[in-house]
Amino acid sequence: MTTGNRNPGLRIVMAQLDFLVGAVPANTDRILDACRQARDRHAADVVVFPELALTGYPPEDLLFRPHFMEHVQVAIRRLCRHISGVTAIVGCPLQEDRLLFNAALVIRDGRILAQYKKQLLPNYSVFDEKRYFTPGEEPCIVTLGELPVGITICEDIWQAGPAQQAAAAGARLLVNLNASPFHAGKRDEREQVLALRARENNLPIVYVNMVGGQDELVFDGGSFVVDAQGAVTQHAPACVEGLYPVDIAAGAPATADCAPRLTLEAAIYDVLVLGVRDYIRKNGFDGAVLGLSGGIDSALTLTLAVDAIGAERVEAVMMPSRYTAPMSLEDARAEATALGVHYREIAIEKPFESFLGVLAPVFAGLAADSTEENIQARCRGIILMAISNKQRRILLTTGNKSEMSVGYATLYGDMAGGFAPLKDVPKLLVYRLSRYRNSLAAVIPQRVLERPPSAELAPDQKDVDSLPPYEVLDPILERYIEHDMSVERIVAEGFDAAVVARVAAMVDRNEYKRRQAPPGVRITQRAFGRDRRYPITSGYQNFQNGGD
Amino acid sequence: MTTGNRNPGLRIVMAQLDFLVGAVPANTDRILDACRQARDRHAADVVVFPELALTGYPPEDLLFRPHFMEHVQVAIRRLCRHISGVTAIVGCPLQEDRLLFNAALVIRDGRILAQYKKQLLPNYSVFDEKRYFTPGEEPCIVTLGELPVGITICEDIWQAGPAQQAAAAGARLLVNLNASPFHAGKRDEREQVLALRARENNLPIVYVNMVGGQDELVFDGGSFVVDAQGAVTQHAPACVEGLYPVDIAAGAPATADCAPRLTLEAAIYDVLVLGVRDYIRKNGFDGAVLGLSGGIDSALTLTLAVDAIGAERVEAVMMPSRYTAPMSLEDARAEATALGVHYREIAIEKPFESFLGVLAPVFAGLAADSTEENIQARCRGIILMAISNKQRRILLTTGNKSEMSVGYATLYGDMAGGFAPLKDVPKLLVYRLSRYRNSLAAVIPQRVLERPPSAELAPDQKDVDSLPPYEVLDPILERYIEHDMSVERIVAEGFDAAVVARVAAMVDRNEYKRRQAPPGVRITQRAFGRDRRYPITSGYQNFQNGGD
Repeated sequence: MTTGNRNPGLRIVMAQLDFLVGAVPANTDRILDACRQARDRHAADVVVFPELALTGYPPEDLLFRPHFMEHVQVAIRRLCRHISGVTAIVGCPLQEDRLLFNAALVIRDGRILAQYKKQLLPNYSVFDEKRYFTPGEEPCIVTLGELPVGITICEDIWQAGPAQQAAAAGARLLVNLNASPFHAGKRDEREQVLALRARENNLPIVYVNMVGGQDELVFDGGSFVVDAQGAVTQHAPACVEGLYPVDIAAGAPATADCAPRLTLEAAIYDVLVLGVRDYIRKNGFDGAVLGLSGGIDSALTLTLAVDAIGAERVEAVMMPSRYTAPMSLEDARAEATALGVHYREIAIEKPFESFLGVLAPVFAGLAADSTEENIQARCRGIILMAISNKQRRILLTTGNKSEMSVGYATLYGDMAGGFAPLKDVPKLLVYRLSRYRNSLAAVIPQRVLERPPSAELAPDQKDVDSLPPYEVLDPILERYIEHDMSVERIVAEGFDAAVVARVAAMVDRNEYKRRQAPPGVRITQRAFGRDRRYPITSGYQNFQNGGD
Repeated sequence: MTTGNRNPGLRIVMAQLDFLVGAVPANTDRILDACRQARDRHAADVVVFPELALTGYPPEDLLFRPHFMEHVQVAIRRLCRHISGVTAIVGCPLQEDRLLFNAALVIRDGRILAQYKKQLLPNYSVFDEKRYFTPGEEPCIVTLGELPVGITICEDIWQAGPAQQAAAAGARLLVNLNASPFHAGKRDEREQVLALRARENNLPIVYVNMVGGQDELVFDGGSFVVDAQGAVTQHAPACVEGLYPVDIAAGAPATADCAPRLTLEAAIYDVLVLGVRDYIRKNGFDGAVLGLSGGIDSALTLTLAVDAIGAERVEAVMMPSRYTAPMSLEDARAEATALGVHYREIAIEKPFESFLGVLAPVFAGLAADSTEENIQARCRGIILMAISNKQRRILLTTGNKSEMSVGYATLYGDMAGGFAPLKDVPKLLVYRLSRYRNSLAAVIPQRVLERPPSAELAPDQKDVDSLPPYEVLDPILERYIEHDMSVERIVAEGFDAAVVARVAAMVDRNEYKRRQAPPGVRITQRAFGRDRRYPITSGYQNFQNGGD
């Protein structure tokens, strides 16, 4: 292939970086540093940053603060002053008159060469962009080297319009700035959509994604390039920062490194580690503490914590009660030893008994029920929070999505904590991730993977005393929560009608617990939190007919 | 005034009713019952229901469930079958092809005579309507009696467009269906906007509002009518349900009952009572329990609980510690006696000591700090939650907005509970509301109103040891939170720079606590919850300059 004069080579650096929400001055420093590196180390012509790199994503209601937007103005002036010898395409909010746009600025040598305003504003799932932004209406074509390049931002590429519009305006290549959060299978979705857009318009596309954890979201990076036929020519790895140069010759991207496709378990595990690490780091904690029960959830949470911040910064606390099996203690000790974390045992018997004592007049004549179980869980919550408070370590909760869905958890007990790594991980996936982690190094005792799950809050208690087996529960929950299927439709797929109705009712009536839960990493198509907005007070019953 | 033949008298009933979110069959029953009453008891020609009466407001993500929308379809068919002899204008979601509209259906004698689709969809503050709905574009004029009536929905009336459009299409009267939540001063705002719209178009307007509490919102009713000159001719009372007939003669509304304008304190107090009552009632609790400390916040929370559901369903628990002053015990007893509620005392000394015992190895060699204070607050949380669990009484938290703003509260301690009546009530307003309640009957001891506030978690502790005086704190918080003012601007209004910076930093870094707080009644222009969406993880510092 010869390089015609009209389209000499162009080197574009994909700046797959982590930007801290709200930290405009620090983010500006990072952008300027990346511009210098792209120019000096990679001989780049252009460096493309993610969507809203300047503010981090999502800045949420910080955008309503005039003072915050002054920071943005100051930062844009700094970018203009200091970016030289390279063209930067930077995602940032743009205020014009009284309107706010989600924009990309093309900056070089003291000038803003062009600006693009995002046209398609997602206002579904975790996104609230119409709360803040006005949609743009125009394409933006900027000539880089001698190649006319069209700019789009995230959602713009998920429908046909903006890319077609850019192509019609003469673009020969598209860049797409993203803050695209992970969910399982997202890499395939992105590659399929980009391939379609590329083929529709006979244009190569450079897709640049943010990386890093932000509250319940993880931006997983994985920036990539497709050629005009939709074939992936280059793919950056997931979950790490980096500057990735893309060479465009004669308008076509050169073939370059492609990060291998990970298994589902590996992809999710890496995202969970990144989410935990960034929540701890960005919120300034000295370390993490968690309760170890001898069960599978706390075992996996412990490996995530260790892989996120290192064993020396993690403390595990086993808090046995009268109902704790000896093998639970053995397994907890084995896990702590295998991973090399600080480990303590603190029995809850004394505080538990002291509560039963002071509450005796209240409980007199009433049968034991979940109240007594909750007291035990809450004694553990107090102990863990005391360690957290005293040592400035964040308390990680260990509950999984199956439990959060049906409310099989104690508010202010095992739900107490600052971050919930497994909040969006269903129980069966907890097992798969644990086996995956053991395949890297055997740290979770085999017995923990095999024994029947138990909360150990009552004699011989098993999860299946209160819940359907997870092999039944998890598929029902996925259908009811992620796919909005009705009880009738789930039953039509072969599940027991009474079980489905009971599960749906448990999900519905436990919204109040979820509303007080800590955030956790979103890994499915619909997580709890910003992604699923349900009323607590609700008369809706899915198992009821419409009253006709 | 004579009634011309072209415009004979028209009687419109404003159906100011409470509709339970999600309970479509039950709401349909209510609508049909109100139609019968309007026709038979009030000889109405027309009955107007609030916005989304059929589903309750806001139905949130229930709207994404196909099964829920089938309930809506069934309900609309029922309305058509059963509404006879009166014309009903009913707010409900309307699905057309794959689009969803926030609509009003005009139904009579088996037919949908007309339908209107809301044009202006609020997507700010607590509202997420663009997440669900597509905006309509057309006016809807329906001839009732012989009067051409234009229909608008809520937000439509807050801008000039839709009313003008209806007037241009021939409307001689407007009806406006609302689900308008309360905040302080809202009655004046509504009357001013409606007066403006009426005068702009020389049209009378009938404004029908929902009533009732729904999670953090209270719809306060107060339906009213303005004539073509913008004068209020009739005003239904706030916070109660009712069917209010409006007589239109010769196209003009007759003068009728106007509910008196309440003081700010009375208006807010009534809204808080309604919010507490509806949260308890609609969520099916048998009663309420709360911790009584001898301080002003718990005293006011107790009066609200009693006024909401009656003293016989309320239990107050005083939980003294080594730091509790004798007068706190005396005042708590006096309050419980004055209000006639169940009252208990449970000392927390023993559980507190048992935690200090088991935690001794953790705390060894470390100075006492807020950790020990938090353990006390959390012992109280466990006791109250045990009573709540055992008796199916909801636990009400007693914290106020000032505390929630700066994080002067213990997660899983005094923040534990299902509902937070004072969550949006700043401390100074707590005093004003308490004096107002005492003006109706002296139930809060004068000393409680006068002694300096204290959490009583350490020897001789006072709030002013940790916080600025509330006379300084509250105005700073209002400026920073409700008005998005910067530290610099607040200082420019005469506040101490160091104090303002400290307060702003406290607000910023306590988002994680607020995210796990129970819901409470919104009464200000910006409450915590759906109304204020801030990242937990944030590098924004308001007291820092932009790094120029």
